[in-house]
Amino acid sequence: MFNKVSIIGVGLIGSSFAQAVKKKKLANTIVAYDTSDYVKDKIVELNIADEVTYSLESLVKDADLVMICTPLGTYRSVAEGIAPHLKKGCIVSDVGSVKGTAMKDIAPLMPSNVHFIPGHPIAGTEFSGPEAGFAELFEERWCILTPAYGTDQAAIDKLSETWKSFDMEIEFMDPYHHDKVLAITSHLPHMCAFTIVGTADELEADLKQDVIKFSASGFRDFTRVAASDPVVWRDVFLHNKEAVLDITQRFIEDLTALQKHIRRGEGDKIEQLFKTSRDIKRGIMEAKQYKPEAEKDGYPFK
Amino acid sequence: MFNKVSIIGVGLIGSSFAQAVKKKKLANTIVAYDTSDYVKDKIVELNIADEVTYSLESLVKDADLVMICTPLGTYRSVAEGIAPHLKKGCIVSDVGSVKGTAMKDIAPLMPSNVHFIPGHPIAGTEFSGPEAGFAELFEERWCILTPAYGTDQAAIDKLSETWKSFDMEIEFMDPYHHDKVLAITSHLPHMCAFTIVGTADELEADLKQDVIKFSASGFRDFTRVAASDPVVWRDVFLHNKEAVLDITQRFIEDLTALQKHIRRGEGDKIEQLFKTSRDIKRGIMEAKQYKPEAEKDGYPFK
Repeated sequence: MFNKVSIIGVGLIGSSFAQAVKKKKLANTIVAYDTSDYVKDKIVELNIADEVTYSLESLVKDADLVMICTPLGTYRSVAEGIAPHLKKGCIVSDVGSVKGTAMKDIAPLMPSNVHFIPGHPIAGTEFSGPEAGFAELFEERWCILTPAYGTDQAAIDKLSETWKSFDMEIEFMDPYHHDKVLAITSHLPHMCAFTIVGTADELEADLKQDVIKFSASGFRDFTRVAASDPVVWRDVFLHNKEAVLDITQRFIEDLTALQKHIRRGEGDKIEQLFKTSRDIKRGIMEAKQYKPEAEKDGYPFK
Repeated sequence: MFNKVSIIGVGLIGSSFAQAVKKKKLANTIVAYDTSDYVKDKIVELNIADEVTYSLESLVKDADLVMICTPLGTYRSVAEGIAPHLKKGCIVSDVGSVKGTAMKDIAPLMPSNVHFIPGHPIAGTEFSGPEAGFAELFEERWCILTPAYGTDQAAIDKLSETWKSFDMEIEFMDPYHHDKVLAITSHLPHMCAFTIVGTADELEADLKQDVIKFSASGFRDFTRVAASDPVVWRDVFLHNKEAVLDITQRFIEDLTALQKHIRRGEGDKIEQLFKTSRDIKRGIMEAKQYKPEAEKDGYPFK
C-alpha cells in the first residue's frame, strides 16, 4: 500500500499504529521519530519500526504517509519541521483529539502538493508510552476523518483504507463539530476523572486510606482514567478550550442544581431528573459502537 | 446455618442474596417479601425464594436472619412493620449504602432481644430488579459491617460467616466513617454520572445524536452508571446528604479551578494538577480490592 510510512511521536497511539501497519504489511519501511531517548531505545528494543531517527528531514523524506502522533501542543513546530521535506503527493495525517488544532496549526503550513487529512482514531487505554501500544488497539472502533473541502479523493480513500484494514469504521465530520462531540463524550469525562482524583487526594489521611481501599465502588475507574498521560490531556483541554469550557459550565450548573435539590430534600425532583434522559441511555445501550472484548480490560475511556 | 432466612425487598441485591443463600445451602427456608406484584411474580417464576409473602408479620415470624434490601427511604416503616414480630435472638441486617440511616431509622426501633447489625456488601451492577440478581454477585468483594458497640459477638460472627461464605471479605467500620468514604468512592461518581447524562440530554439534536454514536470514548460508561435504579439513588443522596454535599462542593471547587486554568491557558498548572495525586493512583492500582472478572462485564461502578 505504501513504500515508506513515517510516524512522528511513538506513544500509545503511534506505537500501536506502527505495529498495526507492520502486522497488516501496509509498508515496505516504517520509520519512527521521537525526541525522547527512552522512547527511541524502546522502539529498537521492541522492534516497533524498521528505522528510528531524530531528524524530521530524514524521517519524512520520500515518505508516502506521515502520521503525526504527538501531543497537540507540538503540532505547529512539527508542521514547520516537516513541511520543507515532504514528498509531492504524500499523505499527512494525525491522530489528535482536537481537530480544530490540526486545521489551525498544521493545515496552513502544508505545501499545496501534499494531501493533509486530519484524523482521530477513537481508541486508547490508560497506559502511555511505546510499550503500551499493540496492533489490535483500533479493532472495531470508530475513526473520524475531517478532510477540508476539496481534498483529493484518492488520498482520502487511501487513508480510509489504511484505518479500515485495522478493522476500524470510518466517519467523516466537520472538524469543529468533532471537537464539540468529543468535548462531551471524552473531554468532560476526563475532566471529571482528573478532578475527582485530585479532590480525593486532598482528603484527610485516614479517609484517603479507606477511599483507596474501597475504591472499587466506582472511584477506581475514575482513577484509571486520571492515570492517562498528563501532557496529552493538558493539550487537549487547552486546545479544545471553547467547547470544553462550555460543556463543563453546563455540567457544573446541572450538578449545582442537583446539589440544591439534595440540600432541600426534594426527592421528587431528584427522581424526575434521574428518570429523564432515558432516551439517551436507551440510544447508547442500543448503539453498536464499541467492541465488547475491549471492555474486558475494564478500561472505560477511549 | 439458619432455619429461616427472610428477605425484605427483592431487587438486584435482595435477589442475589436469596440466590447466594440457596446456592450455599445456608437456610432450610428462604422467605421473601416485596410490595410489588411484578416482583412477587418474578420471585415465583425464577424460584428465587421458597415462599413469598405480602405480610411482614408472616415474613419475619420465627426467622433467624432478616435481611433488609429495600431503598433507604423505607427503613423506618420497614423497622416499624417487623419490630413487633421478630423472634428473640434473631439477627436483623441490611444492605444499604448509607449506614447512618440504618443507625437512625432501624436501630432505635429494634427490640433489645434481637441483634441488629447494619451491613453494606459493596457489589452491584447497573441492572435492577429480581431478574438482575445472581448468586455470584458478591464474590471477591468487600462487605462492610457497622455494628454498634456492645453488639453480641456470636451474632456478628454468624452474619460475617454468611457473607464470607459468598466469598466476600469483611471490614468493620464506624457507620459515619463508612458514609464519608462511600460519599467519595461511590456517591460522587454516581452524582457525576447522573448529571453528565442529563447535561448531554439537553444538547441540540444533531450534537446529541453524535454523542450517542461516539459515546464509547468515555461517555458510555457514565451512561451505564446513570442507568442505576433512580429510587435507590435518590434515597442514597437524600440520606447521605451531609457527606454528599460536602464532597460535591469540594469537587465543584476543584473543577472550577481547573476550568479557570484552562480559560487562562495555564498549561503548567494543569500539568501539575494532573501529575500530583500520583500516590493515590498508585495506591489504588496496587490495592487488591476488586475482582478482575467482574470488570469483564464492563460495569465500572459497584
